[in-house]
Parts: sequence; C-alpha cells; structure tokens
Amino acid sequence: MAEALHDRFERNVVFSLRVSLDDRQASLAKLLALVEALDGRVSDARLIEHQPREVLYELTVFVRDDAQMDCIRQAIAETAGAQVRGVTDVAMESHRGGACETRSRAPIRSDTDLRIVYTPGVARVCKAIQADPAKAREFTNIANKVAIATNGTAILGLGDIGPLAGLPVMEGKAAIFWEFAGVSAEPVLVDTHDPREFIQIMERIAVGFGAIQIEDVAAPECFEITRELDQRLPIPVFHDDQHGTATIVLAGLYSALNLTGRRIQDIRCAISGAGAAGTAIADVLLLAGAADVVLCDRAGALYRGRTEHMNPAKQALAQRTNKDNVRGSLADAMKGRDLFIGVSQPNVVSQDMVRSMARDPLVFALANPVSEISVAQAYQAGAAVAADGRMMNNALAYPGIFRGALDAQARSITVEMLMAAAQALAGCVPKGQLMPEMMDPRTHQSVAAAVRSSAGPGGPLVK
Amino acid sequence: MAEALHDRFERNVVFSLRVSLDDRQASLAKLLALVEALDGRVSDARLIEHQPREVLYELTVFVRDDAQMDCIRQAIAETAGAQVRGVTDVAMESHRGGACETRSRAPIRSDTDLRIVYTPGVARVCKAIQADPAKAREFTNIANKVAIATNGTAILGLGDIGPLAGLPVMEGKAAIFWEFAGVSAEPVLVDTHDPREFIQIMERIAVGFGAIQIEDVAAPECFEITRELDQRLPIPVFHDDQHGTATIVLAGLYSALNLTGRRIQDIRCAISGAGAAGTAIADVLLLAGAADVVLCDRAGALYRGRTEHMNPAKQALAQRTNKDNVRGSLADAMKGRDLFIGVSQPNVVSQDMVRSMARDPLVFALANPVSEISVAQAYQAGAAVAADGRMMNNALAYPGIFRGALDAQARSITVEMLMAAAQALAGCVPKGQLMPEMMDPRTHQSVAAAVRSSAGPGGPLVK
Repeated sequence: MAEALHDRFERNVVFSLRVSLDDRQASLAKLLALVEALDGRVSDARLIEHQPREVLYELTVFVRDDAQMDCIRQAIAETAGAQVRGVTDVAMESHRGGACETRSRAPIRSDTDLRIVYTPGVARVCKAIQADPAKAREFTNIANKVAIATNGTAILGLGDIGPLAGLPVMEGKAAIFWEFAGVSAEPVLVDTHDPREFIQIMERIAVGFGAIQIEDVAAPECFEITRELDQRLPIPVFHDDQHGTATIVLAGLYSALNLTGRRIQDIRCAISGAGAAGTAIADVLLLAGAADVVLCDRAGALYRGRTEHMNPAKQALAQRTNKDNVRGSLADAMKGRDLFIGVSQPNVVSQDMVRSMARDPLVFALANPVSEISVAQAYQAGAAVAADGRMMNNALAYPGIFRGALDAQARSITVEMLMAAAQALAGCVPKGQLMPEMMDPRTHQSVAAAVRSSAGPGGPLVK
Repeated sequence: MAEALHDRFERNVVFSLRVSLDDRQASLAKLLALVEALDGRVSDARLIEHQPREVLYELTVFVRDDAQMDCIRQAIAETAGAQVRGVTDVAMESHRGGACETRSRAPIRSDTDLRIVYTPGVARVCKAIQADPAKAREFTNIANKVAIATNGTAILGLGDIGPLAGLPVMEGKAAIFWEFAGVSAEPVLVDTHDPREFIQIMERIAVGFGAIQIEDVAAPECFEITRELDQRLPIPVFHDDQHGTATIVLAGLYSALNLTGRRIQDIRCAISGAGAAGTAIADVLLLAGAADVVLCDRAGALYRGRTEHMNPAKQALAQRTNKDNVRGSLADAMKGRDLFIGVSQPNVVSQDMVRSMARDPLVFALANPVSEISVAQAYQAGAAVAADGRMMNNALAYPGIFRGALDAQARSITVEMLMAAAQALAGCVPKGQLMPEMMDPRTHQSVAAAVRSSAGPGGPLVK
C-alpha cells in the first residue's frame, strides 16, 4: 500500500492525450493496457465524441518525464485502429495566462456605479482614511491582502532561477491562498540579490498590504530579510520555507505521537538540512518541548567548536541545539534518534541509517521532488511512521495561518500561533491518517481559528 | 438641458435611505416631493417589504453634502406616517473590503489540481521560463498585468494625502481596468517623496508587470519618474494625468470639430494649468496640428523671458508653446482663442472671459470636482461646445489604451498611439453627443484596436 502510494507520486508530469479509436479494431481497455504496460498511470478517461465507427477519448496520464510520454504516444500511433489526435502538457496549459488575476469586486454597470467606485464618490473614502488611517483596513482590500515576495534565489529545488522564472510558483501560491482561505495574495517580484535593497523596497511598498509572505529566498539572506522586515513593519512577515514548514512538521509530529502513543518530551531528533527550513524546524521543536535536536548540513553535524563551513547563523544554531555535542556525519547523528526530518537532498538516507535509529522511528523525508529516502524504503527499514513532502504539504498551513493573523490584525506571527496551528492541524487528522485533508475547508478554517485566538502579545518570534 | 445636466452633477454624495411608510398617512409620492423640496435628487426608489399597513422603500438619493442629507433625514423623521429605518453612505459601503481583489483563475478541487497549479507541476513551467524568459508572457499573468503606482502626492484634487489614503482611487482604477478591458491591474503604493527612490523601487519590481500606470504623482516629479522609467524599462510606462487626460481632450476636440465643422489647424488654444495634464495636453495638441497653444499657471501665461515662478519643466514649455509670446493673466491669454482647456482650479474662468474668446468658442473646463466654469455658464456666455470633467472622463481612454499596448507587446506608448486612441474615441461618439458611451464595450474595444494597430517603432514619446 505504502509502496503503491509512493509509486504513484513518482510520476510528476501530466499529459492530456486525445485518442480516437476505431471500434472494429481497438477499445478503451486495450488502450489503457498499453499505457499501463509502458508504466504510465491513467487518472481519468473521458469519452469526448461518439461517431458510428469511431470514438474519441481524452485520457489524463501521469508519467515520469517527456521521454516516457513520447514512448506512449509512439506506441499508440503504432496500434491498429488507434490514432493520437493531440497531446497537451496539462501543467503548462493550466498556467497559460497565469494562475491568478486582479479583478473588480463588483460590476460597473452604470454611470452611478462608476461615480461611486471612482471619482467623485471615492474622494469621500480617501478623506475618511486620511482622517483615520485605521479605516484603510475597513474600506480598502489591505486587511485581506498578502504580498508574496521573492527575489527568485531559491525557487523550489531549482535554485537561483530569478524572480521571473519563479513567478508561476508565486501565482500558484496566490491561487491556493484564494481557494483555501479567501485571501487576496499578490506576487511581488523584487529583482535584487542585495538583502538590504530587498528590505528597503518591501519597507516602502508594505503600506499596501496586510501581511507579507517571504517566499523562496535563499538562506542565509532570508533570515535577515524576514527578521528585519518583521521588526520594522506593523504587519506580520512570514517566511513559508521556515515557518510554514516548521508548522507542518510539528503538526505531523503531533499526529505521529498520537498514532504511536508517545510524548514530545521523549523525542530526540536529527535534521538533515540547516537552511531556512531546518533552522525553523529546530527552533519550533525545541520550543514545543522536544528532548533534543541535532542539525546536519553537507559537512555533517553542527556542533559547538566546528570551524569548517560555518556562518553566523550556523554558529548560533550550534549553540542552541545538539545537547550532547555530537560530531560526525548525518549517519552518526541519526544513530539512536527517535525522529528524522529531511529538508535537504534526494537519497541521502539509507535503509541502514533508518535501522540505526531508536525503536519505531519516525521518518519525515521532505526534500522535493525526490525525498531523502522513499516512504516505502523507510517503512521496509522499520519506520513506525514515514512521510514525504507530498503528504506534509505547506499548503495545509499557510492559508489558514494568514487568514487567522489577518483577522486578528496581528503585528507578527508568533511561535504560539504556529504551535496553535500545528495542534489544530493534528486535531483535524482523519482516523488512521498522518495528515489532515487538504481539500476539506474545515482544515483551513480550523487553523485560522486557532491562529486567530492565539494571536496576541505572544512569546518570542520565530523570525 | 445643459443647466439640468450640470445641476445633477453638483450632487456628488450618494446615500441609500430606508423609509417605512404607514399607507394611511404617507405615500411614496409625498416622500419624493419632500426630498425634492430639500434639493435632493432621487435616482432610484425600490419597494423592499410590503406589510398590511406598512411598506418599506429604499431610496438612492444624490445630495451635495452630509449636512443636506441630515436635513432630509430630519424632515422625513418629522413627517407623519414616515420612519427612517436606515441611512447608508453608498460610496463608503461600496468600498468596504476594497474595490478589487486577487483571485485564482481556476478552482482547486483535487490533489491533482493542486499538484498542477503548485508543486510538483509548476516546476515545469518555471523551467520553461528560465530557458526562455519570453515565455513568461504566455504562462504567467504578466502580459495582462498593470501596476497602478502612486506615492500619494496628488490624489484627485485632495493633494498630498499619502499613498494609503489614495488607495481607494487606485483600487477604483483597478476595478475599471478589469470591467472595461479585462486588464488585471494592481495598486502599488510607493511610500516615498524622493523621485529617485520611486524610480529605483519601480525598476526593481517591474519584472512582475506588463505595463505601469503612474497615478496621482505630483508635478514636476511625475515627469522625471515617467520619463526615466519608460526609458529604462522594456514595458510601457504611462502617466494617466498626462497621457490619459491628453488623449481625452484630443478626442473631445476631434468630436467638437466634427460638431462645428472646423479643422484642428485653425485652432488656437489657451490652457489653464501647467502641471502634468496641461503639459501633456499642450504637447499632444501641437503634435496633432493645432495652430497655437498658450499655457497659464497661477502667475499667468508661460512665455519666453518669464522669470518668476518658473522651473526647468516650465522653461522648456515656454520654449515650445505660445507662438506670439503672449504675457499677462489667464484672462489675457484667453482673448481671441478658439479653445479653452482647464485642468486647474474651480471657478477661475468668468463668463466675460468666455465672451472674450473667438467666435463659437469651445470650453473644456475639467477641474474636479468643481470646474473652472460650469457647463451651463459657459453655454450662457456663448460657448459652441462646453464640457466638464464628468463628460470627459479618463476612464474612456486608459482601459483601452493599456489593452491595446499589452496586446501589441509595445515597449512604450507613443504619441501616435494616443492620437489613434483619440481618433477611435471620436469615431464612437453617438450622433449629437460630444463623447462616446462609457458603458458601451465597443468604446473600449475600439480604442484597444486603434492602439494595437498603431503600436510600433513610432514617433517621439509623450513622456
């Protein structure tokens, strides 16, 4: 079962395939058998057109890459009675024209409508805000508006591809914000590698937003940017790669503890990856009461006294983690630990490394799109619970976190708010599952309510 | 007729009034007579609820100000059988929550949808843009996206009220962009008085937009900002107060020439106002072939040799306008002219000044919300055609201009494109009218088509 689940997710490229079949020679069953034989997975088959001796089907097919799709297309073309009428790249087509857009909230059907939404009627609204700037939350969109700001330096696993090539990710996030939480989110592409300039620009344009999501900015610049902006601005500044990921990991941990009947106080954790995500996860786990956390980067465990491949952020991390000051490789750091969290590179964890962990280990291997160890392999090696980035998706957390923070008019998102969000998520998990249902609106509503009610003066920022 | 038109427009404040009437003592006719007696204008009356002896009506009432509304409310309250159930400020209410919002372009209903709009599917779109940045026009929203950028220094006639208080105007414009031209326009509030910083910020975030509308930035900073950004960026930069207004004035002039059987080559013009709008109008009129233009500011006519109240922009204006080098006041400058254009202050033009113009003068008094001279007074003083800012509304021009420029992938908006837009507008005017119908989609389609087909290398920028 776990194997099959994992297997399905390896096929990340989706095509829509139109095939006409001559029903004297071919059939849908034969067509699907062919696609399956070539290792494609059909998620949908739909009859488009029915003619006396010919039927047109549209198949949605998940494959690993273009080459596999070419094989499938070729094989169908060579099948008697089958003709490929068209092949569409579904991801590209669904992003054609963009994933989000700015629209009017009400129609303009008459001169009166126009005179109300624009001059002269709008002057009244401007004057009201001039007299009391707090009224802008009421009479403009800013109380519901989030900037998704990036410089494009760490887009997905693709690296520094620039803000323009990263825009589809920002638009996708904006679409998710709208669909899951009714938040009006706007991509802001800041074309600079200088963190000070990024901060200055966002500081100057922040007046038009109710909150800021820093997105896919490389570490360590993301720390300075998020911390400085959060301190300087009266609105929440949230870095999804740090705070969203940390929330999801904590939610997954709470859920895994429920499933296995353990307590967070007994959990000793090893993290692979000491960038934005790893750092925030470590901090949140410790604040939530975990017994110990050790972080590893490519040079191995972060420990007090390490001198190679360090920077001020890592120095500080080594001070507040790794109680026993463990040294050595990731394999050394994982020995005897209860929980492994991967936010690093594909395939850096072996089954032997999982076997070296404490009894019934928890394995969250979150690298995208290929994880540190597959869920199937982790289970084979004895994991009590195993998950990857598809199961532990940030989109479970950030829409509700922002909805709650905006509704509470919070000035910052505190660690209490993130812990409340994680607990709310763990509370929504269907029986026998690890994570809640993404498509259930109650998941996001529950996060929003928890964040809203935990907003307040709060404790130390995770920023 | 002209009087009535003008009169109606003086009432700029709209209230919605709920009144219940006891039908033994009161009636709708009596209620409307009362409102009219107190100089309110009812645009709509709607029956909301009907009970045995009581009916609830909702009236939409245009008034001059809150005090007048208070009088009307008071008078109704004192009327036997009538009770005021509620009074709503329509402009404020219609801006509640903002006039625009950023939404998903497609629903997210399944894990497959999510995996296409966001990771892992979106990575394919990012890589395609990384390999060929021009693909961003196809697979993101930027080819349809306009920044409406302001620093809030010249919001409507309200002055430097700051970008936050100006936001309702930007949102109103965004709503108009969407409704009239399907353009996705986003307010960008740039909180700085330094034009260089404004330029730097817009330059760094421009990568996310297909065009920029500079909006309500004070002169002379708006000239430097618009010119510099247009030169530095590969996308059009348009200043509505300059280029939009100039387009509308030229459209009105073409239409007035059609109505009165004259040629632009014979038109000698006086302009009141030498800021953003006046400067652009003068340039466009001269490029369109007008015989002469003289501009006046508060100190009178701009002429070669004037030393008081000058700046480099005005020095340059004095060089290229005012053929006869006329000196003196606005009254002096208007003598014998065929066309007056006001983009300045309320009530600065008297009927005698109109009488001093050439035979059958054209009077476009565009100051907002109160014009240089009322349309009614201008007609009384002998104007052949008179118009104010309500009739000559920029919203007739900019949605179509941007639609056309975006569709043509223009790098700049040239004077040819503005002249084409003006001609298209003049071509849409219904018989006997001065300006086209705002609510007719063909108006905006016609402007877009003219701008698209005139886009190209083009002549000197009006920037």
